[in-house]
Amino acid sequence: MNIVVQKYGGSSVGDIERIQRVAKRIIKKKEEGFLPVVVVSAMGDNTDILLDMAYQISSNPPKREIDMLISTGEQVSIALLSMALQTLGHDAISLTGPQVGIKTEGHHTKSRIADIDDKVLRKHLENNRIIIVAGFQGSNQDSDITTLGRGGSDTTAVALAGKLQCPCEIYTDVDGIYSLDPRMYSNAKKLDTISYEEMLEMASLGAGVMHTRAIELAQKYRIPILVASSMEEKPGTIIKESEQNMESAVITGLAIDNNDVLITLNNVPYSIAITAEIFDRLAKKDINIDMISQTSPKDHSVNISFTTPKGDLEDAKSALQLITTKFQEISTQVNDKISKLSVVGIGMRSHSGVAAQIFVLLAKANIEVQMVTTSEIKISYVIDPKDQQKAVELIASEFDL
Amino acid sequence: MNIVVQKYGGSSVGDIERIQRVAKRIIKKKEEGFLPVVVVSAMGDNTDILLDMAYQISSNPPKREIDMLISTGEQVSIALLSMALQTLGHDAISLTGPQVGIKTEGHHTKSRIADIDDKVLRKHLENNRIIIVAGFQGSNQDSDITTLGRGGSDTTAVALAGKLQCPCEIYTDVDGIYSLDPRMYSNAKKLDTISYEEMLEMASLGAGVMHTRAIELAQKYRIPILVASSMEEKPGTIIKESEQNMESAVITGLAIDNNDVLITLNNVPYSIAITAEIFDRLAKKDINIDMISQTSPKDHSVNISFTTPKGDLEDAKSALQLITTKFQEISTQVNDKISKLSVVGIGMRSHSGVAAQIFVLLAKANIEVQMVTTSEIKISYVIDPKDQQKAVELIASEFDL
Repeated sequence: MNIVVQKYGGSSVGDIERIQRVAKRIIKKKEEGFLPVVVVSAMGDNTDILLDMAYQISSNPPKREIDMLISTGEQVSIALLSMALQTLGHDAISLTGPQVGIKTEGHHTKSRIADIDDKVLRKHLENNRIIIVAGFQGSNQDSDITTLGRGGSDTTAVALAGKLQCPCEIYTDVDGIYSLDPRMYSNAKKLDTISYEEMLEMASLGAGVMHTRAIELAQKYRIPILVASSMEEKPGTIIKESEQNMESAVITGLAIDNNDVLITLNNVPYSIAITAEIFDRLAKKDINIDMISQTSPKDHSVNISFTTPKGDLEDAKSALQLITTKFQEISTQVNDKISKLSVVGIGMRSHSGVAAQIFVLLAKANIEVQMVTTSEIKISYVIDPKDQQKAVELIASEFDL
Repeated sequence: MNIVVQKYGGSSVGDIERIQRVAKRIIKKKEEGFLPVVVVSAMGDNTDILLDMAYQISSNPPKREIDMLISTGEQVSIALLSMALQTLGHDAISLTGPQVGIKTEGHHTKSRIADIDDKVLRKHLENNRIIIVAGFQGSNQDSDITTLGRGGSDTTAVALAGKLQCPCEIYTDVDGIYSLDPRMYSNAKKLDTISYEEMLEMASLGAGVMHTRAIELAQKYRIPILVASSMEEKPGTIIKESEQNMESAVITGLAIDNNDVLITLNNVPYSIAITAEIFDRLAKKDINIDMISQTSPKDHSVNISFTTPKGDLEDAKSALQLITTKFQEISTQVNDKISKLSVVGIGMRSHSGVAAQIFVLLAKANIEVQMVTTSEIKISYVIDPKDQQKAVELIASEFDL
């Protein structure tokens, strides 16, 4: 029995016609000799409509009841999809997260999957029945309905594939993973494969189609994930373990992020205690910090720069207020017009000089680099947004993205 | 701890404002010293919207999936109502039918409550927590979600009250039970109390606010039910066991039904076998038959008349087709313009002559009675619709309804 987990997102089941189209795709897969276990999200903007009602009642509605409320969205989808399959003459059964045995732990609205009791799942698979599972949900030890937060339905799909040790297919509104956003560079290439590590970097840069947690889970269970279009019959991209031949490409992808701000603290006394205090105060306010750089000390002081999402800026400012009150010599500077380009590639592990190669490229085009950070498989550059398009084209062309 | 079960119907929780109003009523009850267990229906026409989607997929969608689909309606209501209560500072928890331990048996979309496991219920009651229960639903022995069919939420409420041995309050869009429809007779009196038996007769005549199954269950567990308005703070009607003093009123209510047709079979051979065959054929088509009368035999043949709901007429005609093909001497006649008036009252048990008293009333007014049937606490008359208003006024005035 070739089991396969398929996941269809909210826009793929956005109306009755689309649900019927998804049913036909599932049947096609079955006729190819597979037994599909299908995870679906809530229809279209159903979750938002439900949340809107909750926020009419309270600006901070109790999270257990939020889960009780929004979990109905997926339940509607699975019932309708199962009806569509049965109407087309195929044995199918819908199961909610709790019914399929998804046990969760942690807080309501952002629970984690602790385990899957696969008893019910196995029973229906033995009967050769297509199982339709409500994504994004499970039940905790109190038998309360819980939801999994962002990327929840993908996580359900990957966790089921992990439990069943079978491949996972994520059908969505894009047709695969691109080396860079095709809206930024029309020649951008769709990747046939990408490694878990590269996809994690791309996803954490906001460029990926999937949430990092689902990719991490797939990596943990060594489950290959196909990302493909739910609308068109085209080959997508497979996320899997890196292979030798993948290393021939130095750079796999280029992520472009315009949602960060660059904060610089000038004239910081050169002391590890003070640097630690600065980042501790930011951490206590739950401020996400991505790139960090520090100049060499000069006259016993340094300049520290870091990038943070625009949404965290106000909190960051209030944290820094405390710092500048205590250390009056420090001055702060915010640049909210920056562009962050990140090149990602497993190949960088074995190819040195990529950072330098890009510096040369940018210098020739008179593009100033305001900040640069590197990790094992990623290099990020902060540049002026006016130079972004040119830099993207230069890098994409140089590395054949 | 004075537990009380309250039930709020779909129009009472039709929008966020109404849900907030219901929350305030629940809190008022709690402040009066009661601990409410609250059963709610789906918001407004939510169930119809869900069913409409199902029928877009199939004219006969699988019933298990219908239950999976429509049970989400009540789940949305309970989550929002619990949020509203918590936002107003009261401890509350929502529970689905399966979570509250409602075990069902029988077919999907029309299951019956087999038992209630009150473990979860008792735990929350001990914590003095307002429990909000999804009406109309439970789970069967396969742990599938089931719904209870017509009158389901009322049945949930009465069953919970039966298990907890506490009173039950049904809040709805009418303010109580009337002796007759106030739209038919503006002086109609709202009853303070009505017996289970009378309410059952009224309900089965379509005149009642509640479905007969909920009333039967209340009668079985001897649970008093208050029927009152969810909008206004007015005393309603209590349905309870009959009392001695209730017998002083001969007639409690008058039900008017314009949804029946009168079918007459003329020249039926006088044979119990043939009569049995006629009703057997009708029963096999699930045709509801209310009143039946048969004339005395004359020339070895009789005339048989019965009433049936208009909705069953086509099925009835096709059943009778078989009869008239087999027994060609039988002719049939359909009168779809009839009015059925039924007087109901426990007092009739001890007062004889009510039927005659009404015959005299109607005769004086030249109102022709086409058919009459009697039971222990009910007498039904079929008359011409043109005489209906006059007959209603005469009877209501004579018996002080």
